[in-house]
Amino acid sequence: MKLSQLGEFGLIDVLKRGQSPALQGDCPLPVIGIGDDTAVLPYSKKEYLLLTTDMLAEGTHFTRRMPAVAVGHKAMACSISDIASMGGWPTFAVVSIGIPKDLPVRFIKDIYKGMQKVARQFKVSIVGGDTIKTDKIIINAALLGLVEKKNLVTRDGAKKGDWIFVTGALGGSLKSGRHLNFTPRLGPARFLVENFKPSAMMDISDGLAGDLNHILKASHVGARLDFKSIPRHKGVTLSQALNDGEDFELLFTLSPSQSRRLMQWQEKKKLFYFYPIGTITGNAQEKISSKSFTHF
Amino acid sequence: MKLSQLGEFGLIDVLKRGQSPALQGDCPLPVIGIGDDTAVLPYSKKEYLLLTTDMLAEGTHFTRRMPAVAVGHKAMACSISDIASMGGWPTFAVVSIGIPKDLPVRFIKDIYKGMQKVARQFKVSIVGGDTIKTDKIIINAALLGLVEKKNLVTRDGAKKGDWIFVTGALGGSLKSGRHLNFTPRLGPARFLVENFKPSAMMDISDGLAGDLNHILKASHVGARLDFKSIPRHKGVTLSQALNDGEDFELLFTLSPSQSRRLMQWQEKKKLFYFYPIGTITGNAQEKISSKSFTHF
Repeated sequence: MKLSQLGEFGLIDVLKRGQSPALQGDCPLPVIGIGDDTAVLPYSKKEYLLLTTDMLAEGTHFTRRMPAVAVGHKAMACSISDIASMGGWPTFAVVSIGIPKDLPVRFIKDIYKGMQKVARQFKVSIVGGDTIKTDKIIINAALLGLVEKKNLVTRDGAKKGDWIFVTGALGGSLKSGRHLNFTPRLGPARFLVENFKPSAMMDISDGLAGDLNHILKASHVGARLDFKSIPRHKGVTLSQALNDGEDFELLFTLSPSQSRRLMQWQEKKKLFYFYPIGTITGNAQEKISSKSFTHF
Repeated sequence: MKLSQLGEFGLIDVLKRGQSPALQGDCPLPVIGIGDDTAVLPYSKKEYLLLTTDMLAEGTHFTRRMPAVAVGHKAMACSISDIASMGGWPTFAVVSIGIPKDLPVRFIKDIYKGMQKVARQFKVSIVGGDTIKTDKIIINAALLGLVEKKNLVTRDGAKKGDWIFVTGALGGSLKSGRHLNFTPRLGPARFLVENFKPSAMMDISDGLAGDLNHILKASHVGARLDFKSIPRHKGVTLSQALNDGEDFELLFTLSPSQSRRLMQWQEKKKLFYFYPIGTITGNAQEKISSKSFTHF
């Protein structure tokens, strides 16, 4: 069997099977292992440690014609977005870079400049790395973060009746180049966990439809979306908003009473925008089918 | 300028320049950032957190003709060796894998099997990862560890008069395939830090000559080696023992009185073997020139 037949999620399932506690012997136990935006690890009495890793490859995620600074930005910003979606804040990163022999040093310096800029913006210290020789440019960022135990948000807490929100317009990210220069939603995420209690949260990387289904599956619930209320970028169809992915907006669920409070707050303050797009149902069969909407 | 002109260490220097505390603003401060085997980060009252990342690429570090299980073993074992060389023990890992479309799933599963096996052996939990599409196989392991503050060993503490030790025979690692199935020296490292006080330590990845120079540079000292006493694998020349690299033995320095105690201990116990190969001098000009020995 080839990977192309198995698919990425099939592979993750295959790999997870090697992860049963029985096989782990007396390895240290994570609070949460494979399956959420980041791993959640023991840290202090009041905080958990978060750890995530993201790899970008030339030819798959970017080309040499794209601005190297933006490529570096994305390499770091993806991981910051993962940490934000757990309710935490990023702290330290290590970066591995695979560099082709013929690549101008300028390009690598610009990648690093883009990483450093977004790292500083979000108070991340890059504390180490590895550089190796490769045929195509490869960038891997591994990022640590922290989260107060009481503020941790996972994918599996969505409950019947919860409202579903996103933090911004969706769709057309790859075509427009937004996927390269997006701002990780750390501010809105921290605002949310400090003032509300989101029941589930993740960032939208695969597309709203697919990512919402991750929350539904983990939480054993269904959902109904109000398709008209899904915020879209200009010129983007509903299908693109549902399926394009790489938006890196937050997708979260919130109890009805907290949702109403959030709506009132944002009408007054206009600091962040949270768009209600549907509700969680008790019927776990109500998945969001991306295929149903490919003809919109 | 191309990378091939600048060289890896030139690049690391370029990248480190972006790292001045002034530029970091109020980013969290590492205890030790770029420049040692791992980053050293704040953790608890008595312990530091260690973080390292290692990338392996098909074509550079391995080929598809090599056993995939051994490739996976190496991907994880390199990082465990980094943690050991700081005096610590590994805890949690996240793994990114770049997978070509045509690669048999068997190969990836075997890579993962190799990683899991060495991970379990050294009590590492693999808690997350990323899988992406690439042209060649790419594996990145980011590994966390812990070390008691009192047991942390860095590269910069070697002092005049200290003895220089290695933990095993050197040379021919790539040719023999040993680079794929080496055992990280976690046991000897923990034995050392729990019973002695190594003044500097690192693992030998670039070759004894080059790596010893890293210690000498960081510690502002020189060294004299007793070339006859450098343990070599069968059929390996002195030059190969000095320069081949990928040995993943530990290289450390120890005060004269502790060194004599270590020699007495190992004559009695024969549990681990530590080979004295030279001494640290106060003359920082006495670098170990790899070129001087290429004709042995």
